[in-house]
Amino acid sequence: MKYLLAPDSFKEAASAQAVAEAMRRGVLAGDPDAECRMMPLSDGGEGLTTALVRATGGELKPAHVHDALGRPICAQYGFLGGGSHMETDGKTGIRTAVVELAAASGIEHVSPADRDPLAASTYGTGELIHDAIDAGATRIVLGLGGSATTDGGTGLARALGYRFLDDRDCELPLGGGALHRLARIDGTDVPDEVRNVPIILACDVTNPLTGPNGAAAVFAPQKGADAQQVALLDSGLSKLANAIKALNGRNIASQPGSGAAGGTGGGMLGLFNASMRPGIELVLDLLHAREACAWADVVITGEGAIDSQTPYGKVPSGIARLAQSQGKPAIAIGGKVARDPQTMAALREVGIVATFGIAPGSASLPELLADTKRNVKSTCASIASLLRSMA
Amino acid sequence: MKYLLAPDSFKEAASAQAVAEAMRRGVLAGDPDAECRMMPLSDGGEGLTTALVRATGGELKPAHVHDALGRPICAQYGFLGGGSHMETDGKTGIRTAVVELAAASGIEHVSPADRDPLAASTYGTGELIHDAIDAGATRIVLGLGGSATTDGGTGLARALGYRFLDDRDCELPLGGGALHRLARIDGTDVPDEVRNVPIILACDVTNPLTGPNGAAAVFAPQKGADAQQVALLDSGLSKLANAIKALNGRNIASQPGSGAAGGTGGGMLGLFNASMRPGIELVLDLLHAREACAWADVVITGEGAIDSQTPYGKVPSGIARLAQSQGKPAIAIGGKVARDPQTMAALREVGIVATFGIAPGSASLPELLADTKRNVKSTCASIASLLRSMA
Repeated sequence: MKYLLAPDSFKEAASAQAVAEAMRRGVLAGDPDAECRMMPLSDGGEGLTTALVRATGGELKPAHVHDALGRPICAQYGFLGGGSHMETDGKTGIRTAVVELAAASGIEHVSPADRDPLAASTYGTGELIHDAIDAGATRIVLGLGGSATTDGGTGLARALGYRFLDDRDCELPLGGGALHRLARIDGTDVPDEVRNVPIILACDVTNPLTGPNGAAAVFAPQKGADAQQVALLDSGLSKLANAIKALNGRNIASQPGSGAAGGTGGGMLGLFNASMRPGIELVLDLLHAREACAWADVVITGEGAIDSQTPYGKVPSGIARLAQSQGKPAIAIGGKVARDPQTMAALREVGIVATFGIAPGSASLPELLADTKRNVKSTCASIASLLRSMA
Repeated sequence: MKYLLAPDSFKEAASAQAVAEAMRRGVLAGDPDAECRMMPLSDGGEGLTTALVRATGGELKPAHVHDALGRPICAQYGFLGGGSHMETDGKTGIRTAVVELAAASGIEHVSPADRDPLAASTYGTGELIHDAIDAGATRIVLGLGGSATTDGGTGLARALGYRFLDDRDCELPLGGGALHRLARIDGTDVPDEVRNVPIILACDVTNPLTGPNGAAAVFAPQKGADAQQVALLDSGLSKLANAIKALNGRNIASQPGSGAAGGTGGGMLGLFNASMRPGIELVLDLLHAREACAWADVVITGEGAIDSQTPYGKVPSGIARLAQSQGKPAIAIGGKVARDPQTMAALREVGIVATFGIAPGSASLPELLADTKRNVKSTCASIASLLRSMA
């Protein structure tokens, strides 16, 4: 029996990697002849880089760049490896780097007192991408989310050669606060290998660039902007959309997702060879999850809580749908599992045929959290032993 | 897929019948095409009569008899029915009555203040058996255990025609306290249909009739006997063994189980066509569990706590061993499940291939107890859905 072990992390309890390893120990305890492939998953949000790098046996690269406020910072990005169980990227000649916007330009690096929504820029992320291309990347995966910025990705673009000019052809300062003075964009200095490198944006929001649902109105307040600043930033992003349209005819203003990460979604779509994917889809793709599902007889996934959101959520439903498309059943385990018929029916709909709680009896939440790996292991042991006996 | 649903009760939470019904609802929710047979089990102890009567669709019979102290009492025994899914007893011409010693002669009917270990007698149980034979029983199942008596079953035997005489050929009074004066037993008035009716004793103890591990030394103190009374009762049981040997040559004194239920085990083996079986074996036999296991593809059993005792225990390990002998896997579910490798290995040894806890997450014991049926149902739904998808 072939098992694909593809869990999300169990929040506050165990990383996806640790859960997958516990699953593996359990499956082999229940069925010593089982074949296991571990594929710890992330939904494309925080931790995307380390998750993908670890899962593929790639490497993390540190780089000295600048944070959202221009201060020096050492940030990490990664190169995907071939993994042990998937086609190597090497074979296809593609070398994929994974960059998270939050690594350099994240709000996590800016204390509340220092927040400056007008000046904050994605320049450091551009530096990371530059470093990656210099190091041989022929494809970039960029995880959006967690940014401190509302600059429409102009800082990033500038680090890669674009120039953002006012009506006197002077370069604007960094940050979304100056964009309302943007007159035109000059891309003549952008090298072709940068302009053409495929950039895949991992993005789970569908906000447009501007307007009441746009990057400034929805996300800038969390980044410290008051109402006046929101209006200024919104008008700057409008100018950006206009300037991009003037530059190459692309219309990004109302494109779903262009409002992601302070408009970085829009800037990337407008100025680079970029495309947008939901994070979990991208992760599943990069990890060759479809092939792994085709290989497996059964998939075990899981997350801390299997609840009414799970069927509409990311990791378990994402991998289960993929397994379903390959005719394979998925089993979900969780620290907490919903018992209502609606949820169970919705889970079956996405391909999760069975859901087991790992709790061994009455226990407090801290006790359960502490015992997560052990309980994951023994639950998987029972699953594997059962399937072995029925085979 | 054919499911045999054969749980014990979940103590303090749900009867075996209620658990089996919840299992059935769950299995059918997970696999609408499944075939289910419910076989709620008991280990042969308290509740044997109602469990067997219910499981076979038999009937309960009330009878006006006497308790251990000779006071009038209305006690119940039962006739097994043919059940819906097993060979009817009718076909074989056998009509089986189930009698529990505790129903009439139980210590539960005697308040601590009234306890009289010397006078207490099994006469009322003999009246029940008499009633059952009069009503057409051709086989008696007698559940030992819970008695208030240490009379070696002489009261029971007397109700069925035996006479217990002193050295002047006068009948002894009822109760173990007079047995030390026993000189001989007269069985000439015992009708052949009574002497020959097969009596199966459901018995889980192996104590001999007399001595330091005998009925008086081990059990009489719980029934109110002091040290002097214990000695008197023990000598009475010795006299009984001698008198039986003189009557028909049977040697019951050191036979394992002859000390059960105040020596009733020994008296029955010595004076009737009786044999002894562990309670769970007997229950499984009477419910035709072997045939049911042969029919099933998989067995789901369970009890409140699946713990280190379960592999050496009664209901789940009993039905699992039987399933194993038919090449069928058994799954155990429980409110509380042990997670240690030794227990899991020991469970697999007896044929329990998988163990699932029904707890849906962190919860207090009262919450779990209250939700037992619902959690049994959804756990079984997942099991059935999983097996359906793997079939």
